[in-house]
Amino acid sequence: MLRDASCSDVISFALGLPAAELFPAAEIGVAIAHTLDRDPCALQYGPASAALRSHVVRLMALRGVTCSEEQVFLTAGAQQGMSLLARLLLEPGGTVISEELIYTGFQQVLMPYECETLTVPTDPDTGIDVDAVDALFARGARPAFIYTIPTGHNPIAVDMSAEKRSRLIDLARSHRVPIVEDDPYGFVSYGESPAAPLRALDPEWVYYIGSFSKILAPALRVGWVVVPERLMALLGVLKEASDIDTATLAQRSIAAFLDAGGFEAHLARLRTEYRSRRDRMLEGLGKHFPDRACWRVPSSGLFVWVALEDGFDADLALRRSLVEERVAFLPGSAFAVHGDGAGRNCLRLSFSHSASDRIDEGITRLGRLLGRWRGP
Amino acid sequence: MLRDASCSDVISFALGLPAAELFPAAEIGVAIAHTLDRDPCALQYGPASAALRSHVVRLMALRGVTCSEEQVFLTAGAQQGMSLLARLLLEPGGTVISEELIYTGFQQVLMPYECETLTVPTDPDTGIDVDAVDALFARGARPAFIYTIPTGHNPIAVDMSAEKRSRLIDLARSHRVPIVEDDPYGFVSYGESPAAPLRALDPEWVYYIGSFSKILAPALRVGWVVVPERLMALLGVLKEASDIDTATLAQRSIAAFLDAGGFEAHLARLRTEYRSRRDRMLEGLGKHFPDRACWRVPSSGLFVWVALEDGFDADLALRRSLVEERVAFLPGSAFAVHGDGAGRNCLRLSFSHSASDRIDEGITRLGRLLGRWRGP
Repeated sequence: MLRDASCSDVISFALGLPAAELFPAAEIGVAIAHTLDRDPCALQYGPASAALRSHVVRLMALRGVTCSEEQVFLTAGAQQGMSLLARLLLEPGGTVISEELIYTGFQQVLMPYECETLTVPTDPDTGIDVDAVDALFARGARPAFIYTIPTGHNPIAVDMSAEKRSRLIDLARSHRVPIVEDDPYGFVSYGESPAAPLRALDPEWVYYIGSFSKILAPALRVGWVVVPERLMALLGVLKEASDIDTATLAQRSIAAFLDAGGFEAHLARLRTEYRSRRDRMLEGLGKHFPDRACWRVPSSGLFVWVALEDGFDADLALRRSLVEERVAFLPGSAFAVHGDGAGRNCLRLSFSHSASDRIDEGITRLGRLLGRWRGP
Repeated sequence: MLRDASCSDVISFALGLPAAELFPAAEIGVAIAHTLDRDPCALQYGPASAALRSHVVRLMALRGVTCSEEQVFLTAGAQQGMSLLARLLLEPGGTVISEELIYTGFQQVLMPYECETLTVPTDPDTGIDVDAVDALFARGARPAFIYTIPTGHNPIAVDMSAEKRSRLIDLARSHRVPIVEDDPYGFVSYGESPAAPLRALDPEWVYYIGSFSKILAPALRVGWVVVPERLMALLGVLKEASDIDTATLAQRSIAAFLDAGGFEAHLARLRTEYRSRRDRMLEGLGKHFPDRACWRVPSSGLFVWVALEDGFDADLALRRSLVEERVAFLPGSAFAVHGDGAGRNCLRLSFSHSASDRIDEGITRLGRLLGRWRGP
């Protein structure tokens, strides 16, 4: 998929890649050079960077989360955070609760455990169906954890409502089940007052996963989890078994980049640019997509989720689109935990890594395909 | 342990850290700057670097191994290679064959599988006891794989003899069981004609693990495995679930560093310097250690393995050494797979990350402790 997306004659709305032209490459270069120059142990094995953990505490505070350095565990990106938390929490054959359409990387993490995944729907306006979670508990479910992406949901591009946030926390507390809050897109928000992460509401039952991949650069492979302090040592053992430590140079260079003080301006620029691409895509959808398509305005993240009529086959549409129009996207079914046709009439369109004129062109072409759509 | 070793008033022979002062930091800085400057996707998610895979093929050829780019899988260091291969090969409750004293990171990898580890001794002159491996097979063992460190053994500092290498391969072939050859120290050799890796003898039944950590810098977190081509796709899926991809910037920067052509000179310098530290340690042992201590001259790797009399308690010696002499090392028992007292009379001393005068001083102090040793 990474390879296909780099095929330049295809306009790709498929992957959640950040825009390479927005990486602060020069500033990152300066931070790396500075780190190599000043720090004789920057290339050595080493413990997690204390400076970076402090920065993460400050970043979390920007989102309304109070935490301490002793609760911040640095990882090689959000995916590793997820993989380590699964290892920590999940026994083979165990149970988890997740949404029925969810980030495929999470599904990959679960695979070796052969666990039972209990799924609940996601409302495109308010997020995860908390009543359905409640009903699972009422029927006796005892999951190892609840996994959700409350902000900038992948793939459904919804933010969980404030009311649902507090009800989900209540359920987690009363059943003593942790919520794994995956938040790679939480800093990429477009509204006036974005909702605080679940972790802001509960420090004990929410295990938070964050990442620099979308807000700085994925190739540095640095992310973090925020967990109760008592879990830090265990995570340390699991991390060491997995890949020894997190790249010292990358950690210290990110700390140096953040020391330089331009991060908030960089983030503001990212939000402005991504909002503009989002709006360009929404404008195109309004102009070129048929009336039977519907979508919401995402207030965070990198995706627009488009639903077509029942019976629409987005898998087939993708195959035809690649051949007839040279446009890529992901069909909703790609995210279905049970592969049962959920999301089959939906398209996930990423607006983050195409310039505006490519967005116009790609949406025009896709609209043309949908306009002449007669099914198989 | 990483934290303790950085405590500057302790002379530490404990960890297998490379010498930070030998990292080609300036050249790595140039390679990173060059990569950031020329390659707009250096900070993006991306597939494994084709350039680096070609370099790995050339590096392997230096060791007598013939392989192709299609057999080289890039990882976040040797530990991740090991962890992915275990995931690939091992079912929960499965069986592996390993030496009874072996790298602790391998033991950590096995933990979640709750597998049975069948162990065989290691001869300090010729390496793994191949007759004992043969006997395990004869008694019906059906391991998922055999794990060994044939060159620069950790902790026993021995190179497997040529005769044992070919016999172990014969066993693997006839029982159709892969050998996982862990080779982080293989390029750090001191003899005239170091033995070729097991992989040079068999492309089908040897899965090779290599790393840039000891020969370039650990903080870049890049290593590789060489496996039959049919396993590459499976490893790709496991890697993606674990941490998406291997840091694009680090991979491409290492490729740029290797393009620049100074690697062989760098490696020659490393070998010269490590050999000199090894010899300094051996000289100190001869002068300051009691006659009842014995050791061999290691022809590769970063360790000297010292055996004391039966009944000697190296765990206790470590505790006393830290208090009375401020010297750290690892007791052999730390490497015992079955925690059954194997290696209890032995010390693993790393000579790689101490300057020569610190080696002299540390060995003098340790010798003093052993000189007045009366046991508990």
